[in-house]
Amino acid sequence: MSVQNLTDMSLDEIYKLAHKVMRAAGCDEANAAAIADTVMRAERDGSTSHGLFRIPGYVGSIKSGKVTADANPKIAQTLPSVLKVDGQMGYAPLALQAGLPQLAEAAHKTGIAVMSIVNSFHFAALWPETEYLAEQGLVGLACTAFKPSVAPFGAKQAFFGTNPLSFAFPNPGSSPYVFDMATSRLAKGDVQIAARDGHELPADTGLDAAGNPSTDPNEVLKGVLLPFGGYKGSAIATMVELLCAGVTGDNFSVEAGREDNNDGGPAKGGELVIAISPELISSGDWKAHVAGFFTEMKGLDGIRLAGERRHKNRLDTGPRQINTALIETIYSLL
Amino acid sequence: MSVQNLTDMSLDEIYKLAHKVMRAAGCDEANAAAIADTVMRAERDGSTSHGLFRIPGYVGSIKSGKVTADANPKIAQTLPSVLKVDGQMGYAPLALQAGLPQLAEAAHKTGIAVMSIVNSFHFAALWPETEYLAEQGLVGLACTAFKPSVAPFGAKQAFFGTNPLSFAFPNPGSSPYVFDMATSRLAKGDVQIAARDGHELPADTGLDAAGNPSTDPNEVLKGVLLPFGGYKGSAIATMVELLCAGVTGDNFSVEAGREDNNDGGPAKGGELVIAISPELISSGDWKAHVAGFFTEMKGLDGIRLAGERRHKNRLDTGPRQINTALIETIYSLL
Repeated sequence: MSVQNLTDMSLDEIYKLAHKVMRAAGCDEANAAAIADTVMRAERDGSTSHGLFRIPGYVGSIKSGKVTADANPKIAQTLPSVLKVDGQMGYAPLALQAGLPQLAEAAHKTGIAVMSIVNSFHFAALWPETEYLAEQGLVGLACTAFKPSVAPFGAKQAFFGTNPLSFAFPNPGSSPYVFDMATSRLAKGDVQIAARDGHELPADTGLDAAGNPSTDPNEVLKGVLLPFGGYKGSAIATMVELLCAGVTGDNFSVEAGREDNNDGGPAKGGELVIAISPELISSGDWKAHVAGFFTEMKGLDGIRLAGERRHKNRLDTGPRQINTALIETIYSLL
Repeated sequence: MSVQNLTDMSLDEIYKLAHKVMRAAGCDEANAAAIADTVMRAERDGSTSHGLFRIPGYVGSIKSGKVTADANPKIAQTLPSVLKVDGQMGYAPLALQAGLPQLAEAAHKTGIAVMSIVNSFHFAALWPETEYLAEQGLVGLACTAFKPSVAPFGAKQAFFGTNPLSFAFPNPGSSPYVFDMATSRLAKGDVQIAARDGHELPADTGLDAAGNPSTDPNEVLKGVLLPFGGYKGSAIATMVELLCAGVTGDNFSVEAGREDNNDGGPAKGGELVIAISPELISSGDWKAHVAGFFTEMKGLDGIRLAGERRHKNRLDTGPRQINTALIETIYSLL
């Protein structure tokens, strides 16, 4: 086990550090603010892998010339239920900030609406977009791909990204039900941490370089990850590819892998976000119906609803403990 | 291993037998034809668990008075992208037959459309509805719940149904990509077959009556099934509940379980079907893009695309081998 030196930072300090570094890297005010807000909210909710940890990658892909730091996303509502966002080769947070309110408005009017984002670089969690929709009383579904690191079930070669899928549903009177999961058995970062700490991996996490199942994180890092849940999880990972790339027209994971300059930041890709209004569809009082379901599910022994931990973390407005070496790395980027 | 006596039946004979029995059970021509077509297509594609095997259940739920044999589904297009189908307490095939063409037409115009079905009894596979949409050049997503037999991850008590999720995507120039999967690790029928044949179950299939993991099918049949893929599959099963019951307003699995008369047929429930037009959303030539993806994926060693086996079975127009005892049971219902 390694020992981490940790430094207390308030949420405001986290925001300001992220903002300052992104401004220094060339972001305009709008992009810097959107990225800093995304990073701060990840740290606030305890999703540290999507917090300040991402800043070096954000900066790196601007420095390499891959991502446009001051991109101004273009939004076209081509139909009452269809929003097409062109990120103009910038980072996703500003595109999402601009598009999500319009998507919610569309779904409130039409019952169901879809937003495709292309020419964009997504380097964050997906729950901010689906949770936003759930807080407006809408069902939210979002997915995106990434560079290949996961072998489809039956294969031995990386083809899928870790392809996250997020889903949120309003829980009337409480915080929304929200999940946001990689469709790989484990995220690559989890395997790296297991290697660092000398832990064995759970079965079905990955294959070694020769294509054989292995629970040794060092061997799996030379090979490929596997989807969660065998052939069924592999089907979900395929669905993510088809929604975020097949529907949007942007890169499948394999295409992103061939095109990317491997500068440590995200690859160019598409995202698909769907919003659905139970209010305009349900045959009854959906709020009472759904609240009853969640109450009954939470009453089962051993159950925690997805999203509850993040919401609990959020109630703590105090400082967060940030890896001191990471803070030093970020300051070195200024 | 038990030995089955099998009898050859042509697809036409399968259709006619199903049609005759459903007419005898009180179905009008429209309902009998829709159910017989669904049953015949399942046998044609090799999905025997959704073929003639279902006929006794279909008949049983009419005899018990639960399902209306001559229901005439009502369809209301309440918004350009929203179809609300009330099955009028009849079986789903006729409701789907009536609603799907309107759903496809809506999605072709609006980019994305949703159909909710309530007051209906679904006792078939879901791929017929998603595949239909994919054959029209649309993405199809469908899900429904069932009576509780699956414990959410962490719990020991049945709360979810086997909650199938089906997804289809057009594969231009070829047959669509289609999956249709229970969100349990195994279907209950698979566990029953393992018990009959004396086979052990894969790990993580279920818990015994005391809530302990077991690979003994007889013990799991006294306990509960588990979702596929641990907590991630459990999240997918939750999503299915929320889409097919939370959005539509019809029964969650637990509600269906409390309400149902356990006559051997399906419980009353909702279904949600979503159709998306890549043509109206993609930023590029989606057909070439998607065809390239499928070609590359199929090129990986060890890969078979979901839906391929069914499509291959379909090319065989010859007779199917049906369990002789099942045929006798069905004739006894006349």
